[in-house]
Amino acid sequence: MAHRSTIHETLTAVFQVRRFPDTIRAGESAMARPSAVLDRCPPGQRTELAVLLWERALNPAKGTWSLPGGRLRDDEDLDTSAARQLAEKVDVRELTHLEQVWVFSDPDRVPGDRRIASAYLGLVPLTAEPELPPDTRWHPVSDLPPMSFDHGIVVRHARNRLAAKLSYTNIAFGLAPATFTMSTLREIYCAALGYDVDTTNLQRVLSRRKVITPTGATASPGRAGGRPAAVYRFTDSGIRVTDEFAALRPPS
Amino acid sequence: MAHRSTIHETLTAVFQVRRFPDTIRAGESAMARPSAVLDRCPPGQRTELAVLLWERALNPAKGTWSLPGGRLRDDEDLDTSAARQLAEKVDVRELTHLEQVWVFSDPDRVPGDRRIASAYLGLVPLTAEPELPPDTRWHPVSDLPPMSFDHGIVVRHARNRLAAKLSYTNIAFGLAPATFTMSTLREIYCAALGYDVDTTNLQRVLSRRKVITPTGATASPGRAGGRPAAVYRFTDSGIRVTDEFAALRPPS
Repeated sequence: MAHRSTIHETLTAVFQVRRFPDTIRAGESAMARPSAVLDRCPPGQRTELAVLLWERALNPAKGTWSLPGGRLRDDEDLDTSAARQLAEKVDVRELTHLEQVWVFSDPDRVPGDRRIASAYLGLVPLTAEPELPPDTRWHPVSDLPPMSFDHGIVVRHARNRLAAKLSYTNIAFGLAPATFTMSTLREIYCAALGYDVDTTNLQRVLSRRKVITPTGATASPGRAGGRPAAVYRFTDSGIRVTDEFAALRPPS
Repeated sequence: MAHRSTIHETLTAVFQVRRFPDTIRAGESAMARPSAVLDRCPPGQRTELAVLLWERALNPAKGTWSLPGGRLRDDEDLDTSAARQLAEKVDVRELTHLEQVWVFSDPDRVPGDRRIASAYLGLVPLTAEPELPPDTRWHPVSDLPPMSFDHGIVVRHARNRLAAKLSYTNIAFGLAPATFTMSTLREIYCAALGYDVDTTNLQRVLSRRKVITPTGATASPGRAGGRPAAVYRFTDSGIRVTDEFAALRPPS
């Protein structure tokens, strides 16, 4: 058997909740949508969790879609490497969160040299529209194109981690704009979780845990009419566990 | 500069809550202890979170203490490697939980060849007494011996992860015996968290979240007297997030 080198690489699943205009169905008007849209969450909604992928112009796996990433350099650690590789595909100033989620180390996960992949989860907020190179675009996680190697598994793993963290941390700060109404936040949770959540419950739980804070401002009701909506922001801009049991908190 | 190879290794922090007999102070009798012991949690308690370490007989770093682990083989993935390396130091049948927690990849974390370390967290239940090789012993996390390289940082990182997971998962199943009283469970939480918790709150929170289930049996009150105590078990023997917000649960 020929000698195989072992290469260490990073792969980052950058997620953004996006409004895909091409999923608006023919015959539907903007006026007809207001409350029905989110009732169709998860299937058929226009707001979806998307992941950033680039298309391979060359073999191996020419024409398949890959996560941003690449080989770890001798003089950098993994976090530095993930941020550097990502900078080639997306303006990293738009990135609100980046964390290690898993290592994929199956000896045969890619052909040729062995590649051990440290997977990262990255987040970009709803309203950002970072410039992308021509080979790169956002894809709905629910409708991935043909994926390179095990990159589809990496996306699913990162998405599951994101969904789990939405329930016990404030990680949604990375997906939300700086300020938002509860209706927008529900749209984000719905897209990221893959199922609908109740706006009133969401507001109650996140307020009680001090995850979100009202700004005091209100948003105009928009075309759907109704009362002006309260505007919120995330209390913290770094990740934290939001549900330390009351019984288990350290003495303050 | 000489060429450096890059080696991938695993390092596992195996934790057990242990009763260290040598921390009983002179002049204290068993009868004097009952309720006062845990009020001294964290400092001076006799029940402590311990980590499994082995002493290096040779250089590099001769005489310092290391986490179990070692080099990843070409034909195995990281999980397999961590379990294999661990088997040299401890009977892995005693291990109730093993998970990846982090990758330590600073280019200069060890002298010589570059070593990228995938860190694991392992748990052994309170009552287990696995056989150990002569170079290996349990050390209280609060009082570590001189540690090899960055292994002290790895221990602290894994311990912080364990403490965080105690608040939003059922991970304490890995530290508890098969059945236990609330007094024992409080002892385990107190040692693992590093601060005391209230037994009544703990029982209420864990019962409400169905993390623990009464077995129907009772334990005799022991030397301290009082009523017989209810005996519990963990509902699940695999890890799960125990606090999905009510508002965020998927439709069932």
